[in-house]
Amino acid sequence: MRQINYSLNVNPYGPPKSFKKVINQRYKYLADNVDYNYTAAKSALANLHGVKIENILISSGPAEILHIALDTLKIRKVLIPTPSALLYQQACKKHGCKVIPFFLDKNDEFVIDGQKLISSMDDVDLVIISNPNNPTSQIIDKTQMSIILDYCQHKGIYLIIDESYADFVSADISSVKLVERFANVIILRSLADYFALRGLGFSYCVCSQSLSGLMQSNQIPGMVNQLALHGFETLLSDYKYIKKTKAWLLSEPKRFYKKISMLGGVIAYNPYANYIFIELEQIPSATLCDRLEAKGVKVCNCNNRGIIDGQYIRISIKDKRSNDKFLDIFSGCLL
Amino acid sequence: MRQINYSLNVNPYGPPKSFKKVINQRYKYLADNVDYNYTAAKSALANLHGVKIENILISSGPAEILHIALDTLKIRKVLIPTPSALLYQQACKKHGCKVIPFFLDKNDEFVIDGQKLISSMDDVDLVIISNPNNPTSQIIDKTQMSIILDYCQHKGIYLIIDESYADFVSADISSVKLVERFANVIILRSLADYFALRGLGFSYCVCSQSLSGLMQSNQIPGMVNQLALHGFETLLSDYKYIKKTKAWLLSEPKRFYKKISMLGGVIAYNPYANYIFIELEQIPSATLCDRLEAKGVKVCNCNNRGIIDGQYIRISIKDKRSNDKFLDIFSGCLL
Repeated sequence: MRQINYSLNVNPYGPPKSFKKVINQRYKYLADNVDYNYTAAKSALANLHGVKIENILISSGPAEILHIALDTLKIRKVLIPTPSALLYQQACKKHGCKVIPFFLDKNDEFVIDGQKLISSMDDVDLVIISNPNNPTSQIIDKTQMSIILDYCQHKGIYLIIDESYADFVSADISSVKLVERFANVIILRSLADYFALRGLGFSYCVCSQSLSGLMQSNQIPGMVNQLALHGFETLLSDYKYIKKTKAWLLSEPKRFYKKISMLGGVIAYNPYANYIFIELEQIPSATLCDRLEAKGVKVCNCNNRGIIDGQYIRISIKDKRSNDKFLDIFSGCLL
Repeated sequence: MRQINYSLNVNPYGPPKSFKKVINQRYKYLADNVDYNYTAAKSALANLHGVKIENILISSGPAEILHIALDTLKIRKVLIPTPSALLYQQACKKHGCKVIPFFLDKNDEFVIDGQKLISSMDDVDLVIISNPNNPTSQIIDKTQMSIILDYCQHKGIYLIIDESYADFVSADISSVKLVERFANVIILRSLADYFALRGLGFSYCVCSQSLSGLMQSNQIPGMVNQLALHGFETLLSDYKYIKKTKAWLLSEPKRFYKKISMLGGVIAYNPYANYIFIELEQIPSATLCDRLEAKGVKVCNCNNRGIIDGQYIRISIKDKRSNDKFLDIFSGCLL
């Protein structure tokens, strides 16, 4: 039985054909050394974001960037909204950093309130937020973000904004253009889910030139593989793939969310990204996950992410056909 | 003008066709998560070496393993034969380790003498040797290695043996099978040059279960890309590629070495691996490198590797046709 994986938030169109072609064309050059400066890849990304090459740091994955940041900035105490990606906690634990949870409020529909967040920043030296948040699929709009940015700059608190899923959000929520104004900010970015290439090992961050220089001097050189570097250079010009992805994002998330919302026993939160955060009213998340697993369906149980009250799961949004099939199985398991 | 690169010691047959096929077959699965335990890849390597899965640590490159080792073992002072790969020095510098050079003796034809080496180990906590040595292409035979291994174990000195080019050596010089007996030993291994896939980002080491466990707990998880993992699983069974590589290794290095030796103005050292270490008698290495570069040929200038006396270069051994072409240009540049 092939598993239906609704726990991975990847583009349902799968890895682009265009990149498969690139891999085949460049295969023979895998014998050569990698350009350790990653110049061509950095240049493509700098161009995309309208920043300088020196603002870009390329890595094998978001975990590497987090580890380098925690190490380089000698971080001791970190404020992290809960629920968030497990990765942040894991990295902090490895570096012996103390984690202060900031519990997202159900009454705010799990949207981060800038004022509430900054009033919890006493004594921390780093805040890690994700925009859109994972798993809640809620965004921080520019007004709220500006409250957070100003406060962190004023207090000298480092701020990591994980924008790994920002490309799936229709509105422009990115803070990438602000990195030179806010030298305390690191923006994690990724093409891995948007181009359905999680296994390729490529990730990057955008930050001020001074921060990026510091972090790079702390990075083991040559760890990014050559195909990943080709990915940065070529995927961003696959306009056909990007166009069909945008078309899908305009229609399917709304439709799927509506269908999910109509099911009894669940409260689904309006998703901004390509995944939906769901509260279960009548059944523990672990029980539902077990039932789904028995039917070959995997979803993300959010109750291992520091949630203290209620039962929550996260499901990804795929293509219409898969989503309808999922709905069928899912509604059956809720009963 | 396409550069003729005699500074990279890669298999002249280039990246195997078999692996290109694997990449194409598995391309669509790049959307999935990587198995963070690398179980299948580790299993293939454990099988190859006749060790346990727990003896294997997989990484994106040799640099990562060196950095993890220096960090995990809290290394302060390192003995490194000179000349050696630049990587060791770079890693030590990054970790603030003091490097003690052990100058290889021209009178010994740059072969490591076990007794001389151990008599230089006063007060160091790590020794990094490569077998075969890069750039000298000389090996440490089992008798000499046993002197080194016994002494390091007796004195509690860690020993890293870089066997990145061991597969190119016809004799069995590997110490891989000794890792459980010598819990202080880490053996760096690589398939990158043997299968001409330097850009793929895959490397590994073999060591005792306790060391490997310690180092793994210090490694950022999930940094090895999925194609690299497929590489470990499939390349080792490309018997056709391995067979033709072995046939080439049996004939061409001898022939090429003989031709090089007959040139005036050079002393070539009998190579055990797929590269030749050459002393220049009449011309500075930098001058020769410049002349070759002007003809589109790149070789490795060894005078930036801590050599204090004499002029040295390293050239790779490729296929007969390329080697003859190289000889033509090379002999012209010596004059």
